[in-house]
Amino acid sequence: MPTTTPSMAHSDLSRLIHPRFIALVGASDRPQSIGGRTLSNLIDHSTLSGELYLVNPTKTELRGRRCWPSVASLPETPDVAVIAVPAANALSVVQECAARRVPFAIILTSGFGEAGAEGERAEAQLKEIAAASGMRIYGPNCPGLTNVNQGLGMTFSPSFPHDLVKGPIGLATQGGGLGRNVMQAMERGIGIGLWASTGNEVDLQVADFIQYMATAPDIKVIVTLLEGIKDGPRFLAALRCAAENGKPVIALKVGKSEYGRRAAQSHTASLTGSAEVNSAVFRQYGVIEVDDIDELVDTAWLFARALPGTQEGIGIYCSSGGTAALTADAVGTAGLTLAEFAPETTQVLRERLPDYAAIGNPVDTTAAILSDAQLIEQTLGTVAADPHLGCVIAPIALEYGETTIRMAQTIIAAQQRCTTPIVPIWMSDRLGEGYRMLVAGGFAPPRSVGKAVAAIRRWVQWGRWQRSHAGTALRRPPAAAAAAAVQATARIESLPEFEAKRRLRQAGIALLPADVASSREQARRLADAMGYPVVAKIASADIVHKSDIGGVRVGLEDGASVEAAWDQIMASVAHHKPDAAIDGLLIEKMAPRGGIELMAGVTRDPVFGHVMTFGLGGIYVEILRDVTRRLLPLTPQDAADMVHEMRCLPLLTGARGRSPADIAALQQLLLAVSDFVMAHAATLEEMDLNPIWVGAEGQGALPLDAVILERSHA
Amino acid sequence: MPTTTPSMAHSDLSRLIHPRFIALVGASDRPQSIGGRTLSNLIDHSTLSGELYLVNPTKTELRGRRCWPSVASLPETPDVAVIAVPAANALSVVQECAARRVPFAIILTSGFGEAGAEGERAEAQLKEIAAASGMRIYGPNCPGLTNVNQGLGMTFSPSFPHDLVKGPIGLATQGGGLGRNVMQAMERGIGIGLWASTGNEVDLQVADFIQYMATAPDIKVIVTLLEGIKDGPRFLAALRCAAENGKPVIALKVGKSEYGRRAAQSHTASLTGSAEVNSAVFRQYGVIEVDDIDELVDTAWLFARALPGTQEGIGIYCSSGGTAALTADAVGTAGLTLAEFAPETTQVLRERLPDYAAIGNPVDTTAAILSDAQLIEQTLGTVAADPHLGCVIAPIALEYGETTIRMAQTIIAAQQRCTTPIVPIWMSDRLGEGYRMLVAGGFAPPRSVGKAVAAIRRWVQWGRWQRSHAGTALRRPPAAAAAAAVQATARIESLPEFEAKRRLRQAGIALLPADVASSREQARRLADAMGYPVVAKIASADIVHKSDIGGVRVGLEDGASVEAAWDQIMASVAHHKPDAAIDGLLIEKMAPRGGIELMAGVTRDPVFGHVMTFGLGGIYVEILRDVTRRLLPLTPQDAADMVHEMRCLPLLTGARGRSPADIAALQQLLLAVSDFVMAHAATLEEMDLNPIWVGAEGQGALPLDAVILERSHA
Repeated sequence: MPTTTPSMAHSDLSRLIHPRFIALVGASDRPQSIGGRTLSNLIDHSTLSGELYLVNPTKTELRGRRCWPSVASLPETPDVAVIAVPAANALSVVQECAARRVPFAIILTSGFGEAGAEGERAEAQLKEIAAASGMRIYGPNCPGLTNVNQGLGMTFSPSFPHDLVKGPIGLATQGGGLGRNVMQAMERGIGIGLWASTGNEVDLQVADFIQYMATAPDIKVIVTLLEGIKDGPRFLAALRCAAENGKPVIALKVGKSEYGRRAAQSHTASLTGSAEVNSAVFRQYGVIEVDDIDELVDTAWLFARALPGTQEGIGIYCSSGGTAALTADAVGTAGLTLAEFAPETTQVLRERLPDYAAIGNPVDTTAAILSDAQLIEQTLGTVAADPHLGCVIAPIALEYGETTIRMAQTIIAAQQRCTTPIVPIWMSDRLGEGYRMLVAGGFAPPRSVGKAVAAIRRWVQWGRWQRSHAGTALRRPPAAAAAAAVQATARIESLPEFEAKRRLRQAGIALLPADVASSREQARRLADAMGYPVVAKIASADIVHKSDIGGVRVGLEDGASVEAAWDQIMASVAHHKPDAAIDGLLIEKMAPRGGIELMAGVTRDPVFGHVMTFGLGGIYVEILRDVTRRLLPLTPQDAADMVHEMRCLPLLTGARGRSPADIAALQQLLLAVSDFVMAHAATLEEMDLNPIWVGAEGQGALPLDAVILERSHA
Repeated sequence: MPTTTPSMAHSDLSRLIHPRFIALVGASDRPQSIGGRTLSNLIDHSTLSGELYLVNPTKTELRGRRCWPSVASLPETPDVAVIAVPAANALSVVQECAARRVPFAIILTSGFGEAGAEGERAEAQLKEIAAASGMRIYGPNCPGLTNVNQGLGMTFSPSFPHDLVKGPIGLATQGGGLGRNVMQAMERGIGIGLWASTGNEVDLQVADFIQYMATAPDIKVIVTLLEGIKDGPRFLAALRCAAENGKPVIALKVGKSEYGRRAAQSHTASLTGSAEVNSAVFRQYGVIEVDDIDELVDTAWLFARALPGTQEGIGIYCSSGGTAALTADAVGTAGLTLAEFAPETTQVLRERLPDYAAIGNPVDTTAAILSDAQLIEQTLGTVAADPHLGCVIAPIALEYGETTIRMAQTIIAAQQRCTTPIVPIWMSDRLGEGYRMLVAGGFAPPRSVGKAVAAIRRWVQWGRWQRSHAGTALRRPPAAAAAAAVQATARIESLPEFEAKRRLRQAGIALLPADVASSREQARRLADAMGYPVVAKIASADIVHKSDIGGVRVGLEDGASVEAAWDQIMASVAHHKPDAAIDGLLIEKMAPRGGIELMAGVTRDPVFGHVMTFGLGGIYVEILRDVTRRLLPLTPQDAADMVHEMRCLPLLTGARGRSPADIAALQQLLLAVSDFVMAHAATLEEMDLNPIWVGAEGQGALPLDAVILERSHA
């Protein structure tokens, strides 16, 4: 049986991220060169905690510091070698670092995998060096590593000194451009403590930094931008670690459309994978997926302010009726709940606000009280202190000079007296002093109602996910289930239906009774034992398209019909396929009337391994695409989630006077299929149970057809 | 037959919007009062084209201008009376204006319909005055009317002098707060020429200003914020006028969720209507619906830059690979098309850009060429001049100081040489000088990739709508079809099924053959003539639930079965309902096997009148909600659009080896139903054809069941 390599043990990246001794190889005095810019970032803008060694064989001195001719010549072994030499020299420098037993090398140099076949060969050599020496390689083709919380920039980016707001957000990206865009969102008033931009990922990947951040004490929220995922199991291990440490991961992955997939592939030359599978995996591991950078920033910055508590109710506090209605509308459309205020909240609002104010939820104070800062602070504070609320939205429709400044001050003051987050929305295109005060106060105000509510929806959903998954550890796929590319030489075979069903039955999966009769009399006896109606099919390895040659009879209601079917089928087959070897007649019980047709399929995703697709069966699968997906193995929670995520759930729970379906049996079936796939993970390529018949409660859930594709043991 | 009032003829609003003589009634020297602020806006910040008369019986002079004791005492009749007196005096002032034959009154005063029963009574009196005198009333409870293009503010808003960028956008809102928010989007660099904020709308409504803007030469794009629509037909007439004049209308209507509906109702006390119907009407009339203010601004400001041409292809020009991929992804996800460049474009890009740049679409120049402004201008200009393109997206991922300034300059320069709009996206949270240059250049840069692409999608879709509706005038509903609230005294009756079907048949709608037999022999003859199988149902006005008493037999395959059914049904009915008057047995041909079950329903919307809902039939209607809606009457284009909007369209066009369905007959049926409803508009309340059987091409589309609810002529 073939085995696959288990995911690599992750090294501790602490020395890479908090190095004491750094060597800059390729340090330069040309200010616009990679080596020159990196030198400037390290000397002029970084806080070094130990020695910085400059390596350049052509110099003895640079900016008053001694230059060493080689890594080998350094007086001590650096924790990190930052390599800024041209591509032509990079390999020998890396080799030298490995020989010196440098634990970490950051290769800034470009001209590798992204530059064609020669670069790819060089990358393969880098991989070999890393594997042979144990030295971990970061890059190549990357802007470097930025530890903002320590004030350390092992990067050539001229933007480094401009984006140095310390903070609880950790950022792991592949490309540098979009990563720097996120860094500039520090402008919102909350900083990014660490940014890893891993470039071509010959060794260290985004996953390794997610793993690091999951236990790093200075990082509360993990943000990642992905164009492709090189190592699925490693990525999943990192996500599990983040989940176990209660840290939210917010991810933007390019490749949801064919255009995006193609562009990302041409940019990074990495496998982008299937967007549907990717999103399913994210959902399964509690990753908060966003579609755009602004959504990412709104969401991550909200998480950086506070993690969600157990209350999900939303409060709205506002001084414009139209804005209150717009915000309430967005809350409703997002499927969130406007809280009912506690009686004591309502009492304070009634006593303090004028008669014409709306004191329900949303609260509309009207603009008339905008001049009374104390009244706003008190009533907003009362709303925020309401025990039914998970957060309070305070939309500010206008930049209104002094009035808005006062509003910002009251929000800041009210927030100081409570822990429920108040989320101000700065709706105006005009950014005034009030906006700047909210930013300085750490409120990171979203810029539109829709964006704010979308962020809050994700925040609430993650809280729910955390609670529902507390204690139910994410199952680690067995090693054999790890993704494995199909070798060109492997043969994929489809099992005969009867054999596929035999294996499922063997694995304890219930199916309708079926057996092969070798005589007319046995056919009748089998049918009598199963109960009617039954279907009869010719059983022969030589006959594939049974219906076409009259080899199938359905709806046989009694023994006489079964015997007649034997005669008809045998005559027809003898006529059309006189040379076929006949095993007899396959007699199968037919599904009872009623019931619902669903389907479950399993495919092997090249990044993550076996994935189950579950949903409405028949022609509706393709047309209505009411399907949901999960990476295998499933937990019981996963199986329940899959069933409950279907749009057509009301069909199962008893819509329009139908009896409720046997959901328990359906969930059991999905789990059993998951176990079956895991047990055959090394060879099973694809599986299709379509339709699955689901009866009323107590009647069970039965696959009516089964297709299994297997990789042959060649 | 009852008649309803046709929508009012719209007065010409020119004198209201461009008045020569204005009277300010309630002019005050208290700077914070409504009268004082309005006075300041008119004297200090407006460009008056004629005399301003101040009316205040307690003063003889205000700010050096003469005060008149009353409207009656003015030396000439003003075009507009701006009324800023307290609610208690407002009615008598309005009365006085009407007596003086003032054509337009703007009532700024609040304390009317929004303030309870007494205010509602006062509003009723305002309506009467307007109706009796012909004076048009604007307001009450509104911030006033702002004609930016003329520099005239008949408003008390202290923000008036800050939002005076002239421009091609017209804005019509009800509330003032959100309207001012949109006004502040002038910050994007394109101005709003006219803002009407119509408050409680006792007479003039948002619709009247859309109508005005539709022909106003200085307005190119119409933007509206709605909390409710008071007069559906008037609103539709205005939309028709805008469509005929080729002006896009961008609308945000609150009330998509129950929370939003409730909040809007409590804010404006107006009927919010059904969000589904509203969106259907918008789609039908080419209105561009948005969900949030930022979407509204991104979309409207794009339209203000340029209307879409006939090319729909998108180009992307960018200097970051990750950003290029993100943008391409968003374009694909939005269902837009990345253009294939013309050969001459590709040639220029290949010759000019370095080898490592991506010269397909998206173009990724890489950051390496950012220093070469001339190269960027030339290659961006070449892309923008490509004849296959409708627009070019130029995302700018970072604020990067001098580099970004150069980028902004090249975009501005490239745009000067072509008409295809270049849409720069300013993605960074950091707004630098480059952003300000793009704003000053009139580019109104969207602030995220997703927002930009969403705006472009709406822009492209509107262009398509315009082209497909050019020449097909929007049908004007007949007067009788106008919405009419059901009087409390009116009785709603359900027609017997046979009667409902009789009327449809009479109107030329094909149904399966059905007739009432009064004897066993006639039943058999009818069935023989129709062809089998048939269904038999007891025909009696006294029996509603036929199945419950054994009054229905389905699947009768031959004459003998029909005769047997007669005996069984008559016996069962005689047993259960011995006193019922029996007409005989309804014999109906059953639908052929195969075919698809769809449905069409008609309801009367309180705002807009009769609306058709069309979609998948059976239990799927409610669960999958694959339905589409149109206001009646339908045009042939509407009927075709409805069919093609269904998610399950592949069921009709021949998915999975099915034969294509008779779509032509289905569209004909929808049109015939529309005609039927219009012919009975005064009395028809509701109609339900569910299921409608649709056979393969040539087999037709037949309603199998028909329910009609009628308002009785009491």
